[in-house]
Amino acid sequence: MYMHKLTQTVITGHDKAVVETKAGKVRGAVVEGNYIFRGIKYADADRFHLPREVEPWEGVKEALVYGYVSSQITTGLAWDEPWVPHYLWPENEHCQYLNIWTKSLDKNAKKPVMVWFHGGGWSGGSSVELYAYDGENMAEYGDVVVVNLNHRLNVLGYLDLSNYGEEYRYSGVAGLGDLVYALKWIKENIEGFGGDPDNVTIMGQSGGGDKVLSMLQTPAADGLFHKAVMQSGGASLHWDANQRKVNQDFADKIVANLGLTKETIKEIETVSWYDLDAAVIKGIYQCRQEGVPTPSWGPITDDDYYFGNPAHLGWRKESLNIPMIIGSNLGEMQYAAARALPQSKNLYSDEEALQMIREKFGDKGDEIAEAFRKAYPDHKVIDVLYTDTLMRPGLIEFVKDRAKNATAPAYEYMFSFETDWDGGLTAWHNAEEPFMFHNARYLESAYVPEESDKLEDAMCSSWLAFGKTGNPNNSLIPEWKPVEPDKSNIMIFDRNIRAEADFDDQLMAMLPPVDFASMFGLIGNGKPNPGRDGADLEI
Amino acid sequence: MYMHKLTQTVITGHDKAVVETKAGKVRGAVVEGNYIFRGIKYADADRFHLPREVEPWEGVKEALVYGYVSSQITTGLAWDEPWVPHYLWPENEHCQYLNIWTKSLDKNAKKPVMVWFHGGGWSGGSSVELYAYDGENMAEYGDVVVVNLNHRLNVLGYLDLSNYGEEYRYSGVAGLGDLVYALKWIKENIEGFGGDPDNVTIMGQSGGGDKVLSMLQTPAADGLFHKAVMQSGGASLHWDANQRKVNQDFADKIVANLGLTKETIKEIETVSWYDLDAAVIKGIYQCRQEGVPTPSWGPITDDDYYFGNPAHLGWRKESLNIPMIIGSNLGEMQYAAARALPQSKNLYSDEEALQMIREKFGDKGDEIAEAFRKAYPDHKVIDVLYTDTLMRPGLIEFVKDRAKNATAPAYEYMFSFETDWDGGLTAWHNAEEPFMFHNARYLESAYVPEESDKLEDAMCSSWLAFGKTGNPNNSLIPEWKPVEPDKSNIMIFDRNIRAEADFDDQLMAMLPPVDFASMFGLIGNGKPNPGRDGADLEI
Repeated sequence: MYMHKLTQTVITGHDKAVVETKAGKVRGAVVEGNYIFRGIKYADADRFHLPREVEPWEGVKEALVYGYVSSQITTGLAWDEPWVPHYLWPENEHCQYLNIWTKSLDKNAKKPVMVWFHGGGWSGGSSVELYAYDGENMAEYGDVVVVNLNHRLNVLGYLDLSNYGEEYRYSGVAGLGDLVYALKWIKENIEGFGGDPDNVTIMGQSGGGDKVLSMLQTPAADGLFHKAVMQSGGASLHWDANQRKVNQDFADKIVANLGLTKETIKEIETVSWYDLDAAVIKGIYQCRQEGVPTPSWGPITDDDYYFGNPAHLGWRKESLNIPMIIGSNLGEMQYAAARALPQSKNLYSDEEALQMIREKFGDKGDEIAEAFRKAYPDHKVIDVLYTDTLMRPGLIEFVKDRAKNATAPAYEYMFSFETDWDGGLTAWHNAEEPFMFHNARYLESAYVPEESDKLEDAMCSSWLAFGKTGNPNNSLIPEWKPVEPDKSNIMIFDRNIRAEADFDDQLMAMLPPVDFASMFGLIGNGKPNPGRDGADLEI
Repeated sequence: MYMHKLTQTVITGHDKAVVETKAGKVRGAVVEGNYIFRGIKYADADRFHLPREVEPWEGVKEALVYGYVSSQITTGLAWDEPWVPHYLWPENEHCQYLNIWTKSLDKNAKKPVMVWFHGGGWSGGSSVELYAYDGENMAEYGDVVVVNLNHRLNVLGYLDLSNYGEEYRYSGVAGLGDLVYALKWIKENIEGFGGDPDNVTIMGQSGGGDKVLSMLQTPAADGLFHKAVMQSGGASLHWDANQRKVNQDFADKIVANLGLTKETIKEIETVSWYDLDAAVIKGIYQCRQEGVPTPSWGPITDDDYYFGNPAHLGWRKESLNIPMIIGSNLGEMQYAAARALPQSKNLYSDEEALQMIREKFGDKGDEIAEAFRKAYPDHKVIDVLYTDTLMRPGLIEFVKDRAKNATAPAYEYMFSFETDWDGGLTAWHNAEEPFMFHNARYLESAYVPEESDKLEDAMCSSWLAFGKTGNPNNSLIPEWKPVEPDKSNIMIFDRNIRAEADFDDQLMAMLPPVDFASMFGLIGNGKPNPGRDGADLEI
């Protein structure tokens, strides 16, 4: 509970903020001239099936409360809670809800629409999980329409039951279908909320970045969005040659754990979530005992509904005209190691830091320290110990590859801003979100008097400019050039915002490589979840 | 997610806000000069047993994140969410955690200590469930130490297994024992947080009010607190002659559902919470089928650890020297009926309202309307349709009874302030909390420019004066006289704060009586909880 002083008045009433959607009327709240709609159902779905449109209703439905978030395998205390406060919400598999922030309900306003896909891999999280996701400030600061949403996760969204019958052909992409339906709902309804259905930007971080990328590879989403922002994720996630088999083997376990067979498979649609979840947890323990992998939940590449990760399988030509912003953060997952130190990392002298760097990198220590200093001259050298090597090396190639193939530009960024929170932590996985959402003043760990204001203005303005025109350039940043096929032009968001090119190639070439596959263990899954029993259950 | 603009800077660090407790050191955060400690473990416990002190530790433990809240039978979307935003948190049966807000870490500061017991019956809720509970503003405004806490709820705290062996003699009061241990921890440690261990006020609302009352009837708590505030609850709750038998019969069902017997009963301490919860839910359905009652969770009156509700069983003489504040709200549970109207209640004319009143009360309609106007001259007469008759009639007698018996005074209040939220709702169950906690600016449904500021100053100052001296009088309210054995002196907290006596006797005598037992169905249990399966499960 991170509460801050209210400066808002809220107006609600049966006749206030009423909007007609295709299926019926909804009413939201008016918050100091901004309209907020929470928990609009954008689709219905039967378990393990693609979604469908919601049934029409009479009268006016309240849209004052967030809708259910997807059921999750376990919900524990996030280990990064002290600096990334989480907002939990009741879970239910019928979770196809979206939220809207807008300054206008005028059908002719045609404001750019910014859609957010939440992180947490494809297995956890929600549209409200992080305070950074709140759309009010971006909508107000940028005069755009902000939408975020929940969709089916984990086994509910991506269990491949296609071996159990033609009717489950799309069970491995059911949750991806939710995303498509959310965009479809936006296309058909956003005008009533002041938005332009022909100018929709999808954005997401971590698993959400992966979701953004997946939309480019999903034919059903063609024409439903026009620009894409991929933050700290997606480039190398959720594709490996064995994905389908691992998932299908796991499906066999779940079916057996529920006492079902191919003949009785239909019952898997109606067993309680409680029982289904128990069967999944049992399946995970079985995999551990057998030494076989568990599925890293995500849409199944079927070359029909979903064409898989472009880094491995190539880009669909239909999406090559989509401008992109792509980037990552200095620390990502690796910043956390500093928490194990007996004191704040920034209390070590450069000499002590060098000693630690030599201990970690051996002979190459001094050279690596020097490369870090060149790439990040404003940072303490100790940060090289907490520098991301999971995402960044792959991204460099990935964005160049996009530049080679696409007709639309791709803009690259690095977020390396460090706050004073707890003595300083290298920019963590999702640390950029409060800034591009203009919410840095909400987050105690993001707020630095003056500095965070300046940075959130610059970042949010860049995201907004991109949403408006497909080009992020604006007066608050230096010229931001798109990446070229052989040149990584990049914007570095830090206390000193600067444009560079190929700035960390040398550093990344020297730092030991980390297998991307290990990210599956970290994104959305690696939290020390105590689970419902208090048992340590990593899934 | 109700976010408001930040005006805070937070300082954390390994050497900041470090306090030595009996068991070891903890470190909190510094928020604009206030110290906040979250999630300090005040006791450990084995399932179905009274708690014990925590094990000592070396080094410094972080107290930056709230601790687990008690596992709950179901966690759904609260039906009152639009105007009473809830804050959910991971659940675990090992939930003996408290939070502290203070302006000083000086051992000699000896500030009054205000301890909050959360509501939700004895079955749900937590120290962080409602934003109103946040202690920062009360601690800052009043220069007091505020503490709130979690403890075991429902089956975990109050299942009477005493028939299964002497070692389970106290299983029916285990969660009550947590409260005692929290007060014990405060007694032994609060000095280090600037608090006075010899000036502790316990406060609570709804189930929390009941918990306050229970402490007066628990010998183990004698001397651990010195003043008591009971808000909207407790007076007539959680005692009936069959309480023990209903609970024990239910225990038999749970034991059987788990496949256990008297011989194997020990295993009930180690089955997973998942399985235990499933056995409870099954037991509830069994009770429904058999037409027998389910337990209304709460401590079992055993005339040993706990002496039961004084309204039925008399006051323990050891607690008669405890000054009290006791009160309730105008609408309590009954305000909600207005939500079923097709428009805001305040849009009806007095003539239309009178028609509705006559429809509800028949011949007596006009007389009842007149009695309401006398008691609440500043309110629209339609409010009589949404006036509490569950708590208020019983409280009138209860407080007089306290006045007859106790050596210390009891001060009575009525909270009838109505905000503009959604066109106006009669003061609901827990609507007073943001005001006595000085948090009205945090809650969109509590905030009314100028008016709510004025009222929260007056109410919080009254609670603070009471905490400091045992007398709530202060310069912001008229003279507040204690209740006399035959005269209900009362303070009415509304836009116009006024002192009255016997002001609603006539009204309450005319309104149809409501069985207090039906409150069990409403407090903490009556939410349309969809449960984990999305099924409507009322427990």
